[in-house]
Amino acid sequence: MTAPLPPLAGKLAALRSSAIRDLLKLTARAEVISLAGGLPDAELMPRERLAVAADNALRRAGVLQYTESPGWAPLRAVLAERESARLGRTVEVAEVFVTHGSQQALSLLAEVLLDPGALVVVEDPAYVGALQVFRAAGARIVAVPLDAEGMRVDVLKELLARGERPAFVHTVSNFHNPGGVTQSAARRRELAELAAAYGFWVIEDDPYGELWFDRPAPAPVATYAPNVIRLSSASKIISPTLRVGWMVAPDPVCRAVELLKQGADLCGSAFTQQIATELLADETWLNGHVDTVRNAYGERAKALVHALRTTFGDRLRCTDATGGMFVWADFTDGTDTDLLLPRALAAGVAYVPGSAFAVDGGYENSMRLCFTTSDAATLATAVDRLAGAAG
Amino acid sequence: MTAPLPPLAGKLAALRSSAIRDLLKLTARAEVISLAGGLPDAELMPRERLAVAADNALRRAGVLQYTESPGWAPLRAVLAERESARLGRTVEVAEVFVTHGSQQALSLLAEVLLDPGALVVVEDPAYVGALQVFRAAGARIVAVPLDAEGMRVDVLKELLARGERPAFVHTVSNFHNPGGVTQSAARRRELAELAAAYGFWVIEDDPYGELWFDRPAPAPVATYAPNVIRLSSASKIISPTLRVGWMVAPDPVCRAVELLKQGADLCGSAFTQQIATELLADETWLNGHVDTVRNAYGERAKALVHALRTTFGDRLRCTDATGGMFVWADFTDGTDTDLLLPRALAAGVAYVPGSAFAVDGGYENSMRLCFTTSDAATLATAVDRLAGAAG
Repeated sequence: MTAPLPPLAGKLAALRSSAIRDLLKLTARAEVISLAGGLPDAELMPRERLAVAADNALRRAGVLQYTESPGWAPLRAVLAERESARLGRTVEVAEVFVTHGSQQALSLLAEVLLDPGALVVVEDPAYVGALQVFRAAGARIVAVPLDAEGMRVDVLKELLARGERPAFVHTVSNFHNPGGVTQSAARRRELAELAAAYGFWVIEDDPYGELWFDRPAPAPVATYAPNVIRLSSASKIISPTLRVGWMVAPDPVCRAVELLKQGADLCGSAFTQQIATELLADETWLNGHVDTVRNAYGERAKALVHALRTTFGDRLRCTDATGGMFVWADFTDGTDTDLLLPRALAAGVAYVPGSAFAVDGGYENSMRLCFTTSDAATLATAVDRLAGAAG
Repeated sequence: MTAPLPPLAGKLAALRSSAIRDLLKLTARAEVISLAGGLPDAELMPRERLAVAADNALRRAGVLQYTESPGWAPLRAVLAERESARLGRTVEVAEVFVTHGSQQALSLLAEVLLDPGALVVVEDPAYVGALQVFRAAGARIVAVPLDAEGMRVDVLKELLARGERPAFVHTVSNFHNPGGVTQSAARRRELAELAAAYGFWVIEDDPYGELWFDRPAPAPVATYAPNVIRLSSASKIISPTLRVGWMVAPDPVCRAVELLKQGADLCGSAFTQQIATELLADETWLNGHVDTVRNAYGERAKALVHALRTTFGDRLRCTDATGGMFVWADFTDGTDTDLLLPRALAAGVAYVPGSAFAVDGGYENSMRLCFTTSDAATLATAVDRLAGAAG
């Protein structure tokens, strides 16, 4: 006779695993071309350069010990320098906080910025990893739609005019996941002005900003107001295995995050942070490396968009893919992408249906396609298979 | 004119930085012998062996990519095997979950096991990192004192008889931090029986279990009941820089933790997890390495205890230090360790006053002394300086 196990917390019932993750488990079959993933291409990651930096790190004092909660000081210094160039002002080391990937920054910021029941504004379609965290924190979530210029700031403005007072607005300003669009300079300025006027935070979540194909994205929202918290990461430009993300935020936010980080996991890895430091500080090498990634992804993105447009014509509308990792596509003929998925899998191609990114339903005719891990020929085959499945 | 920044969450006011961390910042002066830290000795960490494993890992597929949230599968398999030997039963891979240090397991478990206002029972004096997390989770905390045989299970029994129903009991069963004591086999069995009878979880937090000096600690509490969640870590036996901790728990707990881990930081580092796998799987090497650490710490512990007893005699009572990293000492003459600290620092020695570990006050005459990072002669000097300061 075995006694039943004690109960778990009640709030778990409200949480569910990411639909994307569950789907990915199903699409791991070798014969399926997966455009469903959201992974950078491991073949493009700098294995040799990482090995040299790992070797150098292991000769250094302090590399084996616990490190400081806000991150290894020389890494914060390198990031402060890079972010100063990005933001066009001097970013102090105290404003830089290293996190275990930028997902950890989202999770710690949810604790630091949200009182129970607080309002969070997200973009629709939304980055699922952010939604998951904000839901777990018990936030009330309101979605503002995207268009070709990014977040519809006019809709946000209406919300504010109606008296809604968000604790923060979350935006993926560059090469949106999943929406594929980039916020225009005008919208960035307007968002920052609203944040200053109404006194809310903006979390500018920017893992893809350096992955532009033809021209750099506009200056970050964070250049326009002090109450913008900027997140970025080494995962997409170097490798996710370093688990090095970072936050640029006013000192009181960094100190509050530090308090929570001690409880969350004490500190990051001195070893992977020292490796990241060497690679991020080596500008000549890094610029060349990121160029290689940009060129490869840019070519794949163009191949995917070209195949989609020539194959589907007016039946499908898709984003231009000017950077990042994703194309967002909408069937204009009412094809339901949830219903299409099993047929697509049977035909040997996977994508993520739009419904997985919906905050309040919708996007039944949409899908997210990731072009990072397939070459041009494979992407063309994938689109052929998709067309076969769509009939 | 600059607008004020938006507010932070109200609950932050109730949190405070760990007193130990703040103190450590003050004791970093080179001339101070610090027995205040809680760090393993970096000189004893296997730098060369880690370099070989890092090199091997970087030749492997998958090492640069995101890894699975519950941990790299071969690491979980190695841990399942080690924990099977430890627990005397077959531990399934599904019961093993890799965390970013065992601190992250505490933090995720607080979310998974605690409803708002739930009761948590901790040991007094308490592991500060656990207290911090449980407080941040809004738990009601009740402390049960330690004696030479570990947690006073009779006091827990009285609490339960009075109708208190904890969601879980947290225990550092082996070589307690900060208390220095180890729970007896009889108490372990009794605790497990209470957990089964009253239907609460036990979190058995065991980072120090392998650091025994003369004989191994008794079998884990987890050998006696299925509702014991066991935490351990590579930080104290290999290096904290790997950020590899692990949890052994029933499948429903692991699946709930997985859901939260996705939001917390997606996954750990495939790179450091592959390094940990190689070192933990190499039993012959690992046994030899851990023996070296045991011998060094054991010698230092004995030197510290000897110096304290010969120097202070009846004026100070201290634990025997049969393993782990800490000696707990109580002045029997009313010396206040908070008041003594500035004089001790001036004399060139640091410790952590007992009050830093108190759940509801007390321990004014106590202190925690860490012996891991000083050799026997330095420890003797430290005790001399302490005696000088104590007058």
